[in-house]
Amino acid sequence: MSLPARVRIVDVGPRDGLQNEAMALPAAVKIELIARLAAAGLKTIEAGSFVSPRWVPQMADSDAVLAGILRRPDVTYPVLVPNLKGMEAAIAAGVDEVAVFAAASESFSRRNINCSIDDSLDRFVPVMDLAAARGVRVRGYVSCVLGCPYEGEIAPEAVAHVAGRLAALGCYEVSLGDTIGRGTPAKARAMVERVMQAVPAERLALHFHDTYGQALANILACLDTGVTVFDASVGGLGGCPYAAGASGNVATEDLVYMLDGLGIETGIDLSRLVDTAWFIGDALGRPPASRVARAMGRA
Amino acid sequence: MSLPARVRIVDVGPRDGLQNEAMALPAAVKIELIARLAAAGLKTIEAGSFVSPRWVPQMADSDAVLAGILRRPDVTYPVLVPNLKGMEAAIAAGVDEVAVFAAASESFSRRNINCSIDDSLDRFVPVMDLAAARGVRVRGYVSCVLGCPYEGEIAPEAVAHVAGRLAALGCYEVSLGDTIGRGTPAKARAMVERVMQAVPAERLALHFHDTYGQALANILACLDTGVTVFDASVGGLGGCPYAAGASGNVATEDLVYMLDGLGIETGIDLSRLVDTAWFIGDALGRPPASRVARAMGRA
Repeated sequence: MSLPARVRIVDVGPRDGLQNEAMALPAAVKIELIARLAAAGLKTIEAGSFVSPRWVPQMADSDAVLAGILRRPDVTYPVLVPNLKGMEAAIAAGVDEVAVFAAASESFSRRNINCSIDDSLDRFVPVMDLAAARGVRVRGYVSCVLGCPYEGEIAPEAVAHVAGRLAALGCYEVSLGDTIGRGTPAKARAMVERVMQAVPAERLALHFHDTYGQALANILACLDTGVTVFDASVGGLGGCPYAAGASGNVATEDLVYMLDGLGIETGIDLSRLVDTAWFIGDALGRPPASRVARAMGRA
Repeated sequence: MSLPARVRIVDVGPRDGLQNEAMALPAAVKIELIARLAAAGLKTIEAGSFVSPRWVPQMADSDAVLAGILRRPDVTYPVLVPNLKGMEAAIAAGVDEVAVFAAASESFSRRNINCSIDDSLDRFVPVMDLAAARGVRVRGYVSCVLGCPYEGEIAPEAVAHVAGRLAALGCYEVSLGDTIGRGTPAKARAMVERVMQAVPAERLALHFHDTYGQALANILACLDTGVTVFDASVGGLGGCPYAAGASGNVATEDLVYMLDGLGIETGIDLSRLVDTAWFIGDALGRPPASRVARAMGRA
């Protein structure tokens, strides 16, 4: 197995994580969370979302968060935008990077955003144009890459199609998300190898959820494909550790622990990261969902 | 990667799991747990321990458990024995298989059982003799194979030495235990490859704890070494999901989920197994620690 020397981790906790927590946190806590992640060594921190507050009240204060963070020159703070209106709001807030999203499953696309996959991609054309005009980088997400709650199995071809279109639209990186966490290692690897026929490994990221405890095994299985960017969420945010069906992102500290053990550099300080997991756990009134944070305990 | 067609899982939940839970359960619950595991398809179920009840009160009723289970002819029910006295009690209880244990760490051996590794192995000679005379099979455990709480890193040579001695003493199988769960995939694999120079893969089992969330990734990394026996614990028993430093065995259902996804046969019915995880969780007054049991929920 040929392992990469270095991996970049995108911490999606302040957005993908917190938007799936029942409790909406104040902007000041999010600002502190983002600052702590940057201090721990994260170089890409998903900072918020410019979607309708009717749909995602947890992210209603993303403009205040963006206004409040002290931006480090070596860190990017992408935000999610669903459409041109969100893109305009994000630009008004001074973002340097945004993320757009599409599903690999028709049923999920229709139920989640009420349009077909192709229509959802077409809607991003003006978003991409505006981004290009303003010099804002765009990251793409593909959801349901290893299964859909409505359709079950998803063909790797469908993932490759959507990923290829996002790359062709101008996304500098496309993140492949196992939204429901049902993937297992061999299937994850086969999917990535298929997508690499449409988008080169250097422009792919992988985004696993730990719903079925498979995330680290899936990442391990994909570590020699050439992909070196992985999304994760400090404290495993996004899935309550007590709830049935908890579905958080893989915890950043669990991933860093594995990569440290494999001798792969991340630039992240594990003990600072674990402190951050406890900080946000305290804000949510519960211990972190991650095994490493619980095993290492408070500083 | 060349995967095995079939894997055998040893469920150690009723012993290694329950002896590390704060609450001691009645024999009737343990008997029911063992029956449910057998009905789910487990062929080796660690049923109890003949150690002093002063040290492990949770296992004080192992003779009642052994007397109460309905033994299936195709299932073995090993029990742990620390010495000749335990072996005699196990034989009186009618066991068909026992397990003995030694550490790969001198400091752990001295602190845990108050003697050197070599002395601990010498003490097993009369145990092995009695087992041979009575036709009882003996399984060996080596603890601390990927780290010791007192010494830190453990050399793979030390693990190979102890595993080789247990095999030479007559253990038909030697289970290598990452007692503190600190192992990561490449180190786990390197350790197994070193031990295989002393004991052939067909006589080895691997025993991972999920303290740092690494167990499935470690198993995946070792799946093409030739080892096809893995210890696991239904519901991730042995580590409270809420406690800092929780250190349960890898959950049987998380492992079965991964192996099912890899197309590796286990003979185990996942939904019956998940029911069993909820059954024992209810008995302990908390939800199961395993991700799969929480994601799949109650039947």
